[in-house]
Amino acid sequence: MEIKDLQKAVDDWANQFEKPYFEPLSMMACLTEEVGEVARVMNNLYGDKKKKGDEEERHLEEELGDLLFSIVCLANSNKISLEDAITKKFEKINKRDINRWEHKTNNK
Amino acid sequence: MEIKDLQKAVDDWANQFEKPYFEPLSMMACLTEEVGEVARVMNNLYGDKKKKGDEEERHLEEELGDLLFSIVCLANSNKISLEDAITKKFEKINKRDINRWEHKTNNK
Amino acid sequence: MEIKDLQKAVDDWANQFEKPYFEPLSMMACLTEEVGEVARVMNNLYGDKKKKGDEEERHLEEELGDLLFSIVCLANSNKISLEDAITKKFEKINKRDINRWEHKTNNK
Amino acid sequence: MEIKDLQKAVDDWANQFEKPYFEPLSMMACLTEEVGEVARVMNNLYGDKKKKGDEEERHLEEELGDLLFSIVCLANSNKISLEDAITKKFEKINKRDINRWEHKTNNK
Repeated sequence: MEIKDLQKAVDDWANQFEKPYFEPLSMMACLTEEVGEVARVMNNLYGDKKKKGDEEERHLEEELGDLLFSIVCLANSNKISLEDAITKKFEKINKRDINRWEHKTNNK
Repeated sequence: MEIKDLQKAVDDWANQFEKPYFEPLSMMACLTEEVGEVARVMNNLYGDKKKKGDEEERHLEEELGDLLFSIVCLANSNKISLEDAITKKFEKINKRDINRWEHKTNNK
Repeated sequence: MEIKDLQKAVDDWANQFEKPYFEPLSMMACLTEEVGEVARVMNNLYGDKKKKGDEEERHLEEELGDLLFSIVCLANSNKISLEDAITKKFEKINKRDINRWEHKTNNK
Repeated sequence: MEIKDLQKAVDDWANQFEKPYFEPLSMMACLTEEVGEVARVMNNLYGDKKKKGDEEERHLEEELGDLLFSIVCLANSNKISLEDAITKKFEKINKRDINRWEHKTNNK
């Protein structure tokens, strides 16, 4: 699936409703809520709030799906191309971070 | 209730357990989760995700209680006095923000 | 400093302005921003994004002051007593969590 | 750009370093920080913390790029396919939300 097709699919879904997208700060609150859900599952998987059972990994996939969906809604309603956004991010990190962390060495 | 008594009460509660406080980044994830819960209720009360019924205001009190508790845990385990923190905050805003927003005028 | 005096001091500060409190979801976005700042400092102190120097602990105090201030604004504008909220939180955890984590034993 | 190519590009970038991904809860703190940055810009654009100038929209694109990058890191290090995650999200909303909001009507 192409990123732009994902944005189009979310837009088609939204446009079946009378009010396709929430108000901007309402969407922002949704995004905050979704990140909180990811934090809960990450804590269950890796933190001191560990939960028994092996279904937490499935939950992480689900919460990341919810979070990505929120971000696409926010991008769509602001006419932002996430492909452009991530392309610029790569340009930024390739310049900025080139000496930020230790690189692998070939001779070890 | 004094802020320092709140910090002491949380510390007494925590110290009844073998491991009084979570690891720092696990506590941080809890804090993120709690803010997500506050965002959910705020969206129910004021946003496009409105919920019927009148119990959401009670929920906001509950979520703010959870959030404040998280912050006290994080402060306690880092030996930070929230009274000192907020005192310095007041000093900062009284200097910085003095001309940031429009003040009330007396003659209207 | 009493919690209720803190709420009063923030309210007095806010009421010097024409518009004492932001709109609810704008306040929520501020709260999200402040938690992000706390996350940044916690990562600098305890995570893989470590920063050299010893001023990060002072930064954590500062960010917790900002975060607490945000919460008081949100509580004030919703007429919520944080003392009531935290009192109910203690009632909840004293019932619910009584057997949730391992207690200290006296005979070791 | 395909979503799976994005995940691959981030993985290639990460694997040039000795430690490709941060620890899970450190990555979670990064994600929280990035959402805070998005909240800040959204508040500047739409909230009571408005900023003058027209560069905030460019900032939103930049912050969404940072946030998406964080999510891809978190997904990659958990071996999660974001394409699978979003496909399941669509299945969920197509079932669950079918009658949740008001649909457009054809005859108006």
